[in-house]
Order: sequence, then C-alpha cells, then structure tokens
Amino acid sequence: MESGGKSSKDKVVAVVGGGLVGALNACYFARRGFQVEVFESRDDIREAKIVRGRSINLALSHRGRQALSRVGMEEKIVSKGIPMHSRMIHSLNGKQSPIPYGKKGQVTVCVMCRNAGLAERYPNAKMNFDHKLWLWSPTHVLLLWLEGRPDGSAQSLQADLIVGCDGAFSTIRKQFLRRSRFNFSQTYIPHGYLELTMPPVAGEFAMKPNYLHIWPRNTFMMIALPNLDKTFTCTLFMPFDEFEKITTGDDVMEFFQEYFPDAIPLIGVEALKTDYFRLPAQAMVSIKCSPYHINDKCVLMGDSAHAVVPFYGQGMNAGFEDCIVFDEIMDQCNEDFSAVLPEYTRVRVPDDHTIADLAMYNYVEMRAHVNSKWFLFRKKVDDILHFLLPKKIVPLYTMVTFTRIRYHEALQRWHWQNKVINQGLLVCATGAVLGGSYLIAKHPPKIQSIPIEKVWDRLLSLKV
Amino acid sequence: MESGGKSSKDKVVAVVGGGLVGALNACYFARRGFQVEVFESRDDIREAKIVRGRSINLALSHRGRQALSRVGMEEKIVSKGIPMHSRMIHSLNGKQSPIPYGKKGQVTVCVMCRNAGLAERYPNAKMNFDHKLWLWSPTHVLLLWLEGRPDGSAQSLQADLIVGCDGAFSTIRKQFLRRSRFNFSQTYIPHGYLELTMPPVAGEFAMKPNYLHIWPRNTFMMIALPNLDKTFTCTLFMPFDEFEKITTGDDVMEFFQEYFPDAIPLIGVEALKTDYFRLPAQAMVSIKCSPYHINDKCVLMGDSAHAVVPFYGQGMNAGFEDCIVFDEIMDQCNEDFSAVLPEYTRVRVPDDHTIADLAMYNYVEMRAHVNSKWFLFRKKVDDILHFLLPKKIVPLYTMVTFTRIRYHEALQRWHWQNKVINQGLLVCATGAVLGGSYLIAKHPPKIQSIPIEKVWDRLLSLKV
Repeated sequence: MESGGKSSKDKVVAVVGGGLVGALNACYFARRGFQVEVFESRDDIREAKIVRGRSINLALSHRGRQALSRVGMEEKIVSKGIPMHSRMIHSLNGKQSPIPYGKKGQVTVCVMCRNAGLAERYPNAKMNFDHKLWLWSPTHVLLLWLEGRPDGSAQSLQADLIVGCDGAFSTIRKQFLRRSRFNFSQTYIPHGYLELTMPPVAGEFAMKPNYLHIWPRNTFMMIALPNLDKTFTCTLFMPFDEFEKITTGDDVMEFFQEYFPDAIPLIGVEALKTDYFRLPAQAMVSIKCSPYHINDKCVLMGDSAHAVVPFYGQGMNAGFEDCIVFDEIMDQCNEDFSAVLPEYTRVRVPDDHTIADLAMYNYVEMRAHVNSKWFLFRKKVDDILHFLLPKKIVPLYTMVTFTRIRYHEALQRWHWQNKVINQGLLVCATGAVLGGSYLIAKHPPKIQSIPIEKVWDRLLSLKV
Repeated sequence: MESGGKSSKDKVVAVVGGGLVGALNACYFARRGFQVEVFESRDDIREAKIVRGRSINLALSHRGRQALSRVGMEEKIVSKGIPMHSRMIHSLNGKQSPIPYGKKGQVTVCVMCRNAGLAERYPNAKMNFDHKLWLWSPTHVLLLWLEGRPDGSAQSLQADLIVGCDGAFSTIRKQFLRRSRFNFSQTYIPHGYLELTMPPVAGEFAMKPNYLHIWPRNTFMMIALPNLDKTFTCTLFMPFDEFEKITTGDDVMEFFQEYFPDAIPLIGVEALKTDYFRLPAQAMVSIKCSPYHINDKCVLMGDSAHAVVPFYGQGMNAGFEDCIVFDEIMDQCNEDFSAVLPEYTRVRVPDDHTIADLAMYNYVEMRAHVNSKWFLFRKKVDDILHFLLPKKIVPLYTMVTFTRIRYHEALQRWHWQNKVINQGLLVCATGAVLGGSYLIAKHPPKIQSIPIEKVWDRLLSLKV
C-alpha cells in the first residue's frame, strides 16, 4: 500500500520495548511490509533466567488469542500454557469450591511466555537487545540509542513511526507528559504483592492444575497459578502496612497458620520462611492517559498507554487487542499515519480506560465479594439466565474474557442487565412474599423452619 | 525551638519558586528563625512588566486573607485590590442582574499582585532571582543551580528542607514522579482561555467595578475582573475546537455580535480584532497528587501540589491556606520535620483534592447552571434558609469562600444540607398540591392562570 509517496517497505517503524506487546506489534508491522526495528534495553529476554518473585503469570484469554491468531501464533503459545476452566475458592477450613469462568469450553490459558521470539519469522523485522533509549524527538522522529558496549557509543535512527511499547514506566511517555493537553493519571493501590513457589509433590502438581486457586480473606488474598514445570506460583496480595508487620520467619508461620493453613504443607515450612523475604513486596499501579499519539509520529500501546492492576487477568489481553485494533484502523485508513493515529486514540481510549476501571473493581470483588453469599447467588442467577437467554444476558466476566465486545460496551451492557435482573428479582421476591402470605393464611402454620444457611446452600448447589 | 540537635536558626530551608505561595512560605519560615533561601528562575518578577494575555487575575478571599494576616500582610495586599460584592450576570440582550456572593460585608478582593516583596522584611530570608534549578536530590537535600550568568556557572546548596512552590509544572515534583507509590493525575479540560482588555471610558471603569462580570453562554463564557488602573481584564473560556474556528478579525466580530454584543463597544472593535490573536488560547489543567512529601526532606505546596481550574477562585487561596496549615502542624509537632511532613500530607491531601473537584464542578456550573432557573431558585432557597438559620444552613460557596471550614468538611456538610432541603421542598410541594386540590374542590375553578415564567420571576425577585 502507498501513502505519502513512500511505500510501506520504505518506511521504518521503531518499536520501543521488546516485551510481549512490542514483539507482537513488530509482527503486525512486519506483515504489512514495514522495516521494523525493535529496541529492548534488557539482554535477550528469551535467554534470560526467570527472576523468582518478579513474574506475575499471565492469563491469556479470547482477546489475546485472537491477536495471536492473526499472525498465526495462537497454537504455538497456547501449547506452552495450561488451560484453566474455573476458579477454585479455598475457604479458611481448607474446603475447596470451584466457580467456573464461563460455559464449557471457555478457558483461560495460563502462560509464562515473555516475547517467545514472535517477530523472528519476518526478515524485515530486527530485534535489538541491550539497547537503551537515550533521547528521542517526537517532531523529528529521531531516536538516539546507547548500545550496551563498553565504549558506550551512541547510535541514531530516523524512523517514520515510533511505537512506544515500553511498559508501565515508559520512557516514550515522558515526552508526552511534557506536552500540553496530555491527560495522565497513575494510581498506586494500597496493596503490594509477593510471589512464592509451590513445588510439585512426587512429580505431580500439588493441587488440581486446571484452576485459578484463590484464598479470599477480605482485606487480603492469595492466588495460585499452574506452571508447565508442575509448580504453582502463589501470589499474596496484602496492604503494605500488613507486609511491614511481618518481619521474621515465625511471623510468616503465624500469619499462614491463621489465614492459609492448607497452603503451608504444600509450599513447605522452610521454603515459606526463606522465600517470603527474598524480595520486598512489589507495588501495583493503574495508569491511564490520553491521547495515545503525537501527530503522525508516535503512538503508545500496551502498558505504556494503560497499565492495569492484575485483578481481571486482562493486562496482556488488552495490550494484544491494541495491536488488532490498530491493525483494523490501518486497513480503514490505508496506512496513512496522520489519519490512523488520531482514530486509534479516539477508538481505543474509552475501552482501555474501562478495563483499567474494571480491574480496579475486581481488586475489591476478588478479596471481598467472592466470600459473599449474595455475590455467589447473583452469579448463579446470571449463569442461569445466560443459559436460558444466551444472547440477551451475558455475565460481564464472560463478555470481557471470552468475547471481543468492546470493553466500554460490555460495561454499559452489564449496567443495563443488572437493572433488568434486579428489578426481576424484586418482582419475584414480592410475588413470593404475597404468595407465601396467602398460603399461610389458608393453611395455618405447620411449616418447618429452614436455617437461611441451608437455603443459600441449596440455591448455590443448583447445577446449570 | 530545637529539633534534631540543630536550632531553627541553623537550619536552611530552600523554597523553590518565588511566586505567591513561595514568597508567603518564605515569610512563615523566616518568622520561625530558619535561614530561608528562595530560588526563582525568572527575573525579579516585581519589576517585570505585566505580560498581556497571560495573567488571570486572582480573587483573594477569607482563606488567603487569613494566611496573609498571620504575617501582617493582609492590609498591604487588600489595599492594592478592588473588592467585589457580587457576580453580575450579562444576558444575551444586555440585561445585567447581580447575584451576591454571600452576606453583606462578605467580599472577594480582586488582586494582581505577584509576590509583592513579601519576604523582604526578614533579614534571614533571601530572594535569588534568575536562578534555574538544574538538579536536586531528595535524599541528600542538595540542590544545584544554574545562575543566570553568561558563563552559566553552577552553584550548589545543602538545605535541611526543600519546599517546592514551583507551580503547576513543578520541577521538584518530577522527582516525586520517579518514586514508587506516588499517585498523580493531570487532567486538561477541553476549554482554553484568552484574555482581552476593556479600557476605561473617560477615565472611569467601563462597567460597574465592584462585580465579577459573567456572560454565561452554556458551552462557553466570558468573565471580566476590575483592575486598579480602571481597566477590566476580560477572559473568554471556550472549547479549543471553537477557538480554532475563529481565524480572522471578521470571525471575531461575528462571534461577539452573536454572543457578547454588549461587550463590543466597551472593548472596542479594533482592539478586539487585534488582541484576540495576540496569543493562542491557553490550556487549563487540574493536578492532584499524593503524598506531598519525601521523608523529612521535601514538601510540595501550592500549585505544584494541587493546580486547580480557575472556576472557584480558590487557587491562590488554597495555596495560601497550605502555608497556615503547615504552620499549625509545625507548632503541633515542635518543628520536627520527620513528624510534620507526613502529618501535613495526611491532613491536607483530602482538602486539596476536594477543592480541585469543586473547581471542576464549578466549571460546569458557571457555564450552564447560572442560566438555569432551578439553580437560581435553589440558590435563593439556600440564601433564605441561611438568613433564617445562619448556623445550620450555610451555602457551599459561603463555606468555601468566607470561612476556614476544611474544604472536604464543607463538601460533606453541603451534601447533608442538600438532602435535608430537597426533602423539605418535596414535603412543601406535596402539601401545596394537596392544599390546592382541597381549595379547588371547595371553590370551583375561577383561578387565573399565571405563566410559569412569572412565578419564577416573582420567586427570584424576593429580597432577603
């Protein structure tokens, strides 16, 4: 395709950041024929060792899979992951109860890929590791690099487009911040996280592998995700001031005895006491900004545009979906960057802002609501209605995780559904009370009282 | 007073930014005996000429006056300003209607002071103009300056405390942004502003001087504030895309003919056509952050901590009140910075965030609601109730502008009042309808219909 007199094969796209979104973006641009240069400040991260305690596992679901599928990479990645059908709730007494994600066949895949050599199949895409960005100009689309050489010599590149995929603490975004009328927010949550490893037992997973295990404990919680090597990565989410109270191995044991007793034998007492102090608790940030572009020169994608807290499992999926959305707009606007970039901002900002908000909402839900009977009951009602009216009533989690309905539309639809369902439940409850009163009036009281707990349990045990 | 083995007179406080809040802060610290060094990147701004089109006038009200009064500067500043008792609404047909701010004697003073040589009276306070901050370290409390000399030589200062008063685009705040768990947001509104001058007529003000003149026009508006030289500074607030549509002198005239016809002869046709294009429309930003401090080393105050949009006239007042609040906490914590700084963040953040939100809310109110009859009616009801129950019902504007009730408490109280008043109005309305129905039933209809417009006008013309 032609635009501005230069064909795509004469145009240079500089992708800054060689992580997941950067590497996938490189494929999308390479596929269109652009000269793609990916710059990554770290060593070749495909070869680097896994850093223990610093690697939240990633949940790949529909949006991410669609984005991979367009460049023929879906199967390669999915085969390296472990499918998860359900959440598994661990109560304080060690009881485990599954809550399915969606309908049969709707699974999330737990992956630990980093960039998985995505862009290597394209001769017109080049990965440059150990290249640290030093300076860049959005007006001249000029980048200066410090190569990782002892003499620290600099290298420059004149690009036609700069794609900033350099993560939540993006260097590219700093230039945006210096410009007028750039909206930006970064919000740290009061919780930090800490990772622990649960080793295999006799060569097998220590718990059922095809689940996202959750220990909800109101103000804090732990989750565990399965890895291909039969370990689980357990992540403890807790307010920083609670982390600060635990300073010795004995404190750790006391804390786990009280809140996660069933996890102690599985992680191992000694491992728990050591691993807990390997790294300090890490902070989590939610980042929103707008616009995502500077003229026809530069665009932000992935975490650099919208870092989200990890409680909806959509961080990577949203970043991957950015690539599809951009690609679709490239088609609509004939690869004319001066039209593509503003349109990308217009279309994508409301969706990314919504998923950031939803992740924040889930931050509350996962800790508190998963324990609440009303929440479980409403989830059951939603599931029954979705079974009866599969097109009309779709649970929010399903829309977000297993469809490509735009995030902000999914949220609007959910608000509408909630209104309708709650009104329906009110009508049913009123009917039941009136009907009940009538029956009691007709047949004098010989009714056996049932504890409310049992009613809940019966409702929740209904199978759909 | 002693703290950390060093007396206050041995301690150096570096105030970065010599604007209004910086200069006032210098007074507060100097009064306590600290060695105060104020650094300002610009030339001596007391001597600099007024930049036309870049100087939103400032409304000094109760909070700001209290802060000045503590250092004996209130009268000096107030005598240089013009008191404003009311807002004056200009309707499209040129009709002017006053809306008082509060009770008699409650006035806002329009001032154009910059730093007014506030800190000069203290021998232990030094103003350093033309000093540009180059580097600084929050851990070593070390600042490096570039003096405004041809050789560009650098100068360093080791301080005990750094006070960042360097405005909405603060250099000091940039170091905060690099630290983990610093929450920050900057939100630009879609409106820009542009200033025009309304000259005196035969040596006198062209309009009544003791008013804030407002031309509310829904999506945009103009205001005018009086200056000591008998001119008015008119500020036009309008969405940027509307500004972009006006490109010629004739466009300006057409636009003013349609929306502000009464202002044309007062500003003057030729002045209007030229001044309008002197500078491009300026952006307005709302900035919130937290925490305001780094350890016991550095603290942000004024616009660097909380830039607000200019629609509540509280920007300078909130910045001045920062100085009192900090001063009060200095007393409570015996000038121990390690206790004062976290306490200042704890106390002040919720109030500053509230005034930022209220200013944003007024951004809508001033444009739209001032034209709405329900808004005017509710304002009238509030005023009547405030007259009858002066301690129970206080209009929000009065609490914000004429008291030192903490901003966030004023907002909470306003929500409570609104609930009570709206319920009361509902009861009255129901009573009136029932009573009316009864009367109509008793005395068959011979009632003359009154247009609703007249009812409003009668209600609004009630004098309190």
